[in-house]
Amino acid sequence: MEISNGGIDNTGSIITIKGMLSLLMQSVDDEKNEKKVISLAMGDPTVHSCFHTTHVATEAVAEALLSEKFNGYAPTAGLPLTRRAIAEYLSRDLPYKLTPNDVFVTSGCTQAIDVAMALLSRPGANILLPRPGFPIYELSAAFRHIEVRHFDLLPDKGWEVDLDDIESLADQNTVALVIINPGNPCGNVYSYQHLQKIAETANKLKTLVIADEVYGHLVFGDKLFVPMGVFGSTVPILTLGSLSKRWIVPGWRLGWFVTTDPCGMFRKPKVVERMKKYFDILGGPATFIQAAVPSILQQPDEVFFKKTLNLLKQSVDICYNKIKEIPCISCPHKPEGSMAVMLKLNLSLLDDIIDDIDFCFKLAKEESVIILPGTAVGLKNWLRVTFAVDPYSLEECLDRIKSFYQRHAKQLQRY
Amino acid sequence: MEISNGGIDNTGSIITIKGMLSLLMQSVDDEKNEKKVISLAMGDPTVHSCFHTTHVATEAVAEALLSEKFNGYAPTAGLPLTRRAIAEYLSRDLPYKLTPNDVFVTSGCTQAIDVAMALLSRPGANILLPRPGFPIYELSAAFRHIEVRHFDLLPDKGWEVDLDDIESLADQNTVALVIINPGNPCGNVYSYQHLQKIAETANKLKTLVIADEVYGHLVFGDKLFVPMGVFGSTVPILTLGSLSKRWIVPGWRLGWFVTTDPCGMFRKPKVVERMKKYFDILGGPATFIQAAVPSILQQPDEVFFKKTLNLLKQSVDICYNKIKEIPCISCPHKPEGSMAVMLKLNLSLLDDIIDDIDFCFKLAKEESVIILPGTAVGLKNWLRVTFAVDPYSLEECLDRIKSFYQRHAKQLQRY
Repeated sequence: MEISNGGIDNTGSIITIKGMLSLLMQSVDDEKNEKKVISLAMGDPTVHSCFHTTHVATEAVAEALLSEKFNGYAPTAGLPLTRRAIAEYLSRDLPYKLTPNDVFVTSGCTQAIDVAMALLSRPGANILLPRPGFPIYELSAAFRHIEVRHFDLLPDKGWEVDLDDIESLADQNTVALVIINPGNPCGNVYSYQHLQKIAETANKLKTLVIADEVYGHLVFGDKLFVPMGVFGSTVPILTLGSLSKRWIVPGWRLGWFVTTDPCGMFRKPKVVERMKKYFDILGGPATFIQAAVPSILQQPDEVFFKKTLNLLKQSVDICYNKIKEIPCISCPHKPEGSMAVMLKLNLSLLDDIIDDIDFCFKLAKEESVIILPGTAVGLKNWLRVTFAVDPYSLEECLDRIKSFYQRHAKQLQRY
Repeated sequence: MEISNGGIDNTGSIITIKGMLSLLMQSVDDEKNEKKVISLAMGDPTVHSCFHTTHVATEAVAEALLSEKFNGYAPTAGLPLTRRAIAEYLSRDLPYKLTPNDVFVTSGCTQAIDVAMALLSRPGANILLPRPGFPIYELSAAFRHIEVRHFDLLPDKGWEVDLDDIESLADQNTVALVIINPGNPCGNVYSYQHLQKIAETANKLKTLVIADEVYGHLVFGDKLFVPMGVFGSTVPILTLGSLSKRWIVPGWRLGWFVTTDPCGMFRKPKVVERMKKYFDILGGPATFIQAAVPSILQQPDEVFFKKTLNLLKQSVDICYNKIKEIPCISCPHKPEGSMAVMLKLNLSLLDDIIDDIDFCFKLAKEESVIILPGTAVGLKNWLRVTFAVDPYSLEECLDRIKSFYQRHAKQLQRY
């Protein structure tokens, strides 16, 4: 009588972001340190009062709730009106039209990731994941018994995908290649040309692409957001997304799993039947929240979107400029999208810090600042910083990191 | 480049309730038949206006939504205040106190079922499921690669569990035994003594018990509802439940997965770590709905509960009495709880009906009445009827079934 402690999966070895943050929070020294704890570690902007959703969205959900028309079960793939609204929303940026049948409504993008993993799972399967990346992919792959192979993102090329790496890693058991764009945790935005090369590579390798676009449209640099689905006729694409980031409502758990696949590989009857059955065993999002989706997606609140993008741009500018004052940290690529950035740690300038984890634990203890060590997203001796933070807290945080550096800086050596 | 069509699982062979109902709906002959379609097949009472939730619940959710305090992520196991409220709610009926750490908040009871399956999955595992039962268990087990073994429920003994059957089916790879009480699809309610025997049997077989109590407290006969967790010191129990049925809000997707286990088997650090990681890859319910749970559970609206139970009792009485007028159908056990009942079909009294599926398809076509064939829940030549229907529709439905019988009754034979 025992719950499996892992069995054939290897979840035990995976560091989760939440697990790491929980340890970091515990190491904050409350007694010695009277500073307020500030976290640049969680991708949840709602904790900062400057980031809040539009009233349009809240009112649409309240209206659906109070109507008492949506207290019952939705079909497991989602309400037809919700599937239609998401299909129309995504089709605006595609050279073809999605149908409601291409859309499956999920409990946030997290569930969409797990659906993809569960559906692709088969004995011997492997998946190509970006490094650095988003560890829920690794964890979900482990629970679904899919082997993970990492390809590098290249910091000196704007975190572009290392296509050679992909070619060398893929084999006949490779079931998918994951692209996160706009990038988490790097804040990069891929060009049309680079996405096209990825699609062509995937086509050559006969593997489909999972396009994680949870930060879709959250771009504030020079590059436009191009959905991977644009290349759906080159290679079948599973597009994952949600209301969470663009509408700043991660807690509403309203995401989507969409087959952007004009050639119809995902419309084979057996595949559709299996997808439908898989959705039968999932919880899915609340019906009344689903019912609000058409109002939310059909009435884009441009003023609200612009305000969010301006705030993110302002934060990135603060972050990018302040970091220049901290010699042990550098930013190889100024973020153009999403809510996170990867910073490189130069340990040779620090006296008593052995690695990124040591840096983050000492920083938490001494300065009550929580930052995620890069190790948690696959890059040792880097840091992941979430900049969707109010400007005041962000400046305060970076000032504390500067003080921390000054205390720990290596003394100049005589040569 | 292919989505697995089953691979090592056997989901392809499983008939889902939704799949069956969809086929039945298609067979309704709209052109020839002007009767309104009435369904006694789905366990969703919200489609009938007499069944609606209490304002207390709706207002609690609206308040949490409009506060804009709960738009962010909840911890993946659920908000602490929600976990505490569920622990207190369930502890009222237990001889010990649950703690918030025993409770994991899920996206409805469906997700709680899948969590149980995923956590118990290991190579070679098997699970004992009741026949008749709730097919989501079979489907989830197939997706999680757990072998299913069925034990019988005994119609002539109030649908009690066949304990001898359980003893003969279990082996060292049996990971759990599922008990649904109040019963779906049989409408039975188990006595304290019977539950005790189940617990003792499970203890003897060294297998844990999954107690599906999604219909908890929905009893209207002579028997009280006894939660399986009462026997948590005899055998570790996973209690699954939700707001869905008692509060008539299945679309809110607010359920729970609870370790009712005073001896602490589920508190081993490795087991807790694995459970937490599993919840990290799930979507979970909306944060603001979670935030409303304390108000909902702490202020039980007794008038509302009584009204629901009276309605269900009235429906059962209509159903039970009307069935006596239809010779080919019999009810071996008058429901005392839940929202469904199993009726036995006597095919020898029918002229041109070959089995339960044939009966249901012809009934749909000729009378626009949708009933689930027993085959879909494991019992051939039975019918599953949901009685959480408004009394007028229920009477109308049963009258149509009577007409159907009269048209198809075998003519008396000369002997």
